[in-house]
Amino acid sequence: MTQTEPHMSEPLRLGIAGLGTVGVGVVKIVRQKANVLAARTGRPVVITAVSARSRDKDRGVNLSDYAWEDDPVALAKRDDVDVFVELMGGHEGPAKEATEAAIAAGKDVVTANKALLAHHGQALSETAEAAGQVIRFEAAVAGGIPVIKALTEGLAGNDITRVMGVMNGTCNYILTRMQSAGLPYDEVFEEANQLGYLEADPTLDVGGIDAGHKLALLASIAFGTRVDFDAVELEGIQRITIEDIHQAADMGYRIKLLGVSQMTGRGLEQRMSPCLVPDDSPLGQLEGGTNMVVLEGDAVGQIVLRGAGAGEGPTASAVMGDVMDIARGLRIATFGQPSHTLEQAKPAKSATAAPYYLRMELLDKPGALAKIAAVMGEAGISIDRMRQYSHADETAPVLFVTHKTTRDALDHALKGFDATGVLASPPVSIRIEAV
Amino acid sequence: MTQTEPHMSEPLRLGIAGLGTVGVGVVKIVRQKANVLAARTGRPVVITAVSARSRDKDRGVNLSDYAWEDDPVALAKRDDVDVFVELMGGHEGPAKEATEAAIAAGKDVVTANKALLAHHGQALSETAEAAGQVIRFEAAVAGGIPVIKALTEGLAGNDITRVMGVMNGTCNYILTRMQSAGLPYDEVFEEANQLGYLEADPTLDVGGIDAGHKLALLASIAFGTRVDFDAVELEGIQRITIEDIHQAADMGYRIKLLGVSQMTGRGLEQRMSPCLVPDDSPLGQLEGGTNMVVLEGDAVGQIVLRGAGAGEGPTASAVMGDVMDIARGLRIATFGQPSHTLEQAKPAKSATAAPYYLRMELLDKPGALAKIAAVMGEAGISIDRMRQYSHADETAPVLFVTHKTTRDALDHALKGFDATGVLASPPVSIRIEAV
Repeated sequence: MTQTEPHMSEPLRLGIAGLGTVGVGVVKIVRQKANVLAARTGRPVVITAVSARSRDKDRGVNLSDYAWEDDPVALAKRDDVDVFVELMGGHEGPAKEATEAAIAAGKDVVTANKALLAHHGQALSETAEAAGQVIRFEAAVAGGIPVIKALTEGLAGNDITRVMGVMNGTCNYILTRMQSAGLPYDEVFEEANQLGYLEADPTLDVGGIDAGHKLALLASIAFGTRVDFDAVELEGIQRITIEDIHQAADMGYRIKLLGVSQMTGRGLEQRMSPCLVPDDSPLGQLEGGTNMVVLEGDAVGQIVLRGAGAGEGPTASAVMGDVMDIARGLRIATFGQPSHTLEQAKPAKSATAAPYYLRMELLDKPGALAKIAAVMGEAGISIDRMRQYSHADETAPVLFVTHKTTRDALDHALKGFDATGVLASPPVSIRIEAV
Repeated sequence: MTQTEPHMSEPLRLGIAGLGTVGVGVVKIVRQKANVLAARTGRPVVITAVSARSRDKDRGVNLSDYAWEDDPVALAKRDDVDVFVELMGGHEGPAKEATEAAIAAGKDVVTANKALLAHHGQALSETAEAAGQVIRFEAAVAGGIPVIKALTEGLAGNDITRVMGVMNGTCNYILTRMQSAGLPYDEVFEEANQLGYLEADPTLDVGGIDAGHKLALLASIAFGTRVDFDAVELEGIQRITIEDIHQAADMGYRIKLLGVSQMTGRGLEQRMSPCLVPDDSPLGQLEGGTNMVVLEGDAVGQIVLRGAGAGEGPTASAVMGDVMDIARGLRIATFGQPSHTLEQAKPAKSATAAPYYLRMELLDKPGALAKIAAVMGEAGISIDRMRQYSHADETAPVLFVTHKTTRDALDHALKGFDATGVLASPPVSIRIEAV
């Protein structure tokens, strides 16, 4: 064995707060794989205590061997707990209080809580690191994909140039289902709701907030900066229509809720928004609820990671990856380098130029297209491809794919379109991301 | 900081043996990124000494700051080296001697040498672990993709059910280039040779040996077994014809040199051979020199990792990932659990059933097809799809896709075909892998 910690053959004792899908998944792994976990780490991994809202609920696993705490804060402070496993969720209230209590009581923390870390990660990790404890959160980003580990450790010799990802399976399910079934957003949203795919507050999913939390965490590790969720440019998928999906497909693209972060000359760019990606790219081909993260480094080039982004098994797998690291004595700063050394990045909104997809309904009168083209010319936007579709009514659907342009120039053009008086409805613009 | 090792602010001192592409890549990273490496690990990462065959060669990097050793064994023993970075290659001779010397002298080892570990990994790691040293080899498998880390650490809470991969970029280049250009094997092989893609002994690539080494290493970690390269069923791509590539494509498949390992009721299966995979699967869509590894675990489901499998930057990135772990005090057993606890698996040749692709040239006489079909029926092989192509000459090309069958049944049928006297040439059979 290579570990040098004292008491290496002592059990590692987990206290699990939250017994929903993921918590139950963790309990199952610890119970069913005791031998293999001990063989791999050189010490038993055990659960000593658990906590959840309802003690009586039948969760399909035997919890009778574990002490029960109604209060997660009490669980976090127990002397027989080495690692506080926080699977409650929510960025305020019990999850935050219990995590703070665990750190104050000298426990390591493993959490799946992206919201908590996106809002309070800096403070929590500074406190933990000052006391020699670790906070680990592989399960918070992209479910079972070991992306935090890949970025923090595997690619530690790289300057990371860009991170990207489809990290909300529900949104990807909705978008790919709209395309495959030809159904409008509202109908597929309702389907997803019936299937139980949506959070209690669906805006967390379809508004891009959940995925935005994940992007902010990835960006911190990638660029050595403090987590800055408030600086993420957020846009959900609610305005994506079946027309846009069909017409993007017709031009060779798929629409994805894509997170992108890169360090630019103007500051740190963090965007979570619908984007067009080529339909033959790995991101374009991602169907259903699967997640994909793309990591780009100056040495390694592009690494693509794909796997289940949610669910009992995959998320519990990620939690256990962190637990196993702690059991093996593999201890690393929360965001890859000591939290007090992370820099506060200047936010740069849509700093990088990109081509855009533009869809508009022109009133069917002479000179309409010329007016639109003139506005684009004035804004310095050149056109890569244009299509006008045949039409029976009084408006003409027109699509443009522009050459690379800045968000500022695009906003200027969008204002100009409005002033022409030839649009039947507000134009739709979606960034095309080079992947 | 969470690390607790003594002297954490002391530099970590590397001795690099081998200054080919990868060695030069490592030197560049250490020289160009000193600040970021130190920020991430809390200590400087420096090179103190280097060794290579020729001292005078211009490698495009400044080596004058480093001590030079003609003999890698001398380098391995130097007092001012903490980590011996072995980038020479070859499983006997200097690489082995120097690695043994480094371990004996109390150094940690980082290596890109798949052949060395595939042949001597067990002995080397037992010695290293007994002395408290680590051997790390991320760069030995799938270049820049952090797959060893993902499997050993990220998925440590899983029972791994199967590992698969396209792990030789040269073979994948040849196969995809044959398809895209419609060129025969020999011609594309020569192209690859001209481009410098092939090893000095090309059989290492096209014979599947290099990829087989990688598979044996992955299997050891995945299943907690001793590396057993000799038990890998090896078959190269030399017999793959442009006809098979076209006709596989016609049935919706691509041909890949695919490694597959799984633990079965009959023992450990390790195969590195040409396989058909669906053309719309991530493996089927993998073009050119890129690598892809698929990891399947009982909790996590399927994780797919994609990236550059070779080249200066990607391989140096993997070497540096291991170096950074050591600098951070992240120390883990070579194969994920103490080497002396690894089991000797019973090899099981092609234990799992699969559908097969069969191509044959039938002599154009009455009853030929009936005879072939009868042989398959006797062998218990049922046919999923069959195609006979129109033909101008005296032989008729016929394709079969069978339902799942065992390798034994297939071998039985292949013998039976021979006895029918209706074949113009030996039939081609290629396994179809469910991915």
